[in-house]
Amino acid sequence: MAKGKVIRIEPIGIVRNDFEEKVPEGYENLPSEIVLRKGFSDALHRIEENSHIIVLFWMDRVEGKRRKKLKIHPKGRKDLPLIGVLATRTPYRPNPIGVRVVRLLMKKKNLLIVEGLDALNNSPVLDIKPYSLKHDLVKNAKVPSWATHLSNKEE
Amino acid sequence: MAKGKVIRIEPIGIVRNDFEEKVPEGYENLPSEIVLRKGFSDALHRIEENSHIIVLFWMDRVEGKRRKKLKIHPKGRKDLPLIGVLATRTPYRPNPIGVRVVRLLMKKKNLLIVEGLDALNNSPVLDIKPYSLKHDLVKNAKVPSWATHLSNKEE
Repeated sequence: MAKGKVIRIEPIGIVRNDFEEKVPEGYENLPSEIVLRKGFSDALHRIEENSHIIVLFWMDRVEGKRRKKLKIHPKGRKDLPLIGVLATRTPYRPNPIGVRVVRLLMKKKNLLIVEGLDALNNSPVLDIKPYSLKHDLVKNAKVPSWATHLSNKEE
Repeated sequence: MAKGKVIRIEPIGIVRNDFEEKVPEGYENLPSEIVLRKGFSDALHRIEENSHIIVLFWMDRVEGKRRKKLKIHPKGRKDLPLIGVLATRTPYRPNPIGVRVVRLLMKKKNLLIVEGLDALNNSPVLDIKPYSLKHDLVKNAKVPSWATHLSNKEE
């Protein structure tokens, strides 16, 4: 396959939180706001009936050269094997799109307050989806032993 | 928030299957190929240690006017309430990015064979991530009653 056509995506909103340079430890319990562009309030109608949503965001602070690496040691840990970036959750990937399941705490018009988002302040939001028990919950998924090893940290 | 800056994303690969106009019933058990661009084979190193991966793809057959609607009846069913598009999994959303957890059947160089992808033939692939038991598995998620109602269909 040759080089693909470029896709142009206009963000639907933006993340607001205190994470300026890096996502802090314990982000799982920290709140972020998602501010959608004016006019998108109706697209959130009844989203508050979900306890969890999936946020797709663009990790715009990942520099170009960090998107070129094909293999990494997960979390930079040399004791773990070299793994292809697409087989890890590293932000340093060809297209740094974050996908994170977060707890939805509150909705007000075009504003969501969520908990557990690992996005930096001002990250563009590309899409929001409700968490689906049918599609997203895979209880019997098998993961590599290195990922289990990191079980209490982020892969 | 004003209109956002446009983000330019170059696909990392493409979907190959027999789904030309619509995703067929029973796609959950049908295979698709994902062909990554030459040079990306190393980025898949050891991905085969995962039973499930998350595929992000661009639903390029969704026309512009279908991306403008803010509320829909899920699955076009008038007996279900009007819901904001971002609170459903409809492809008809402002940024039609598909996110699907699929079973990984085989890897060979820059080719993956997966099962359960609801993408049309030739859809551009934006990213691939391993399914994470830590991040993606939310056993206690609460979903709306209309979604439970559709439990054996796609929301």
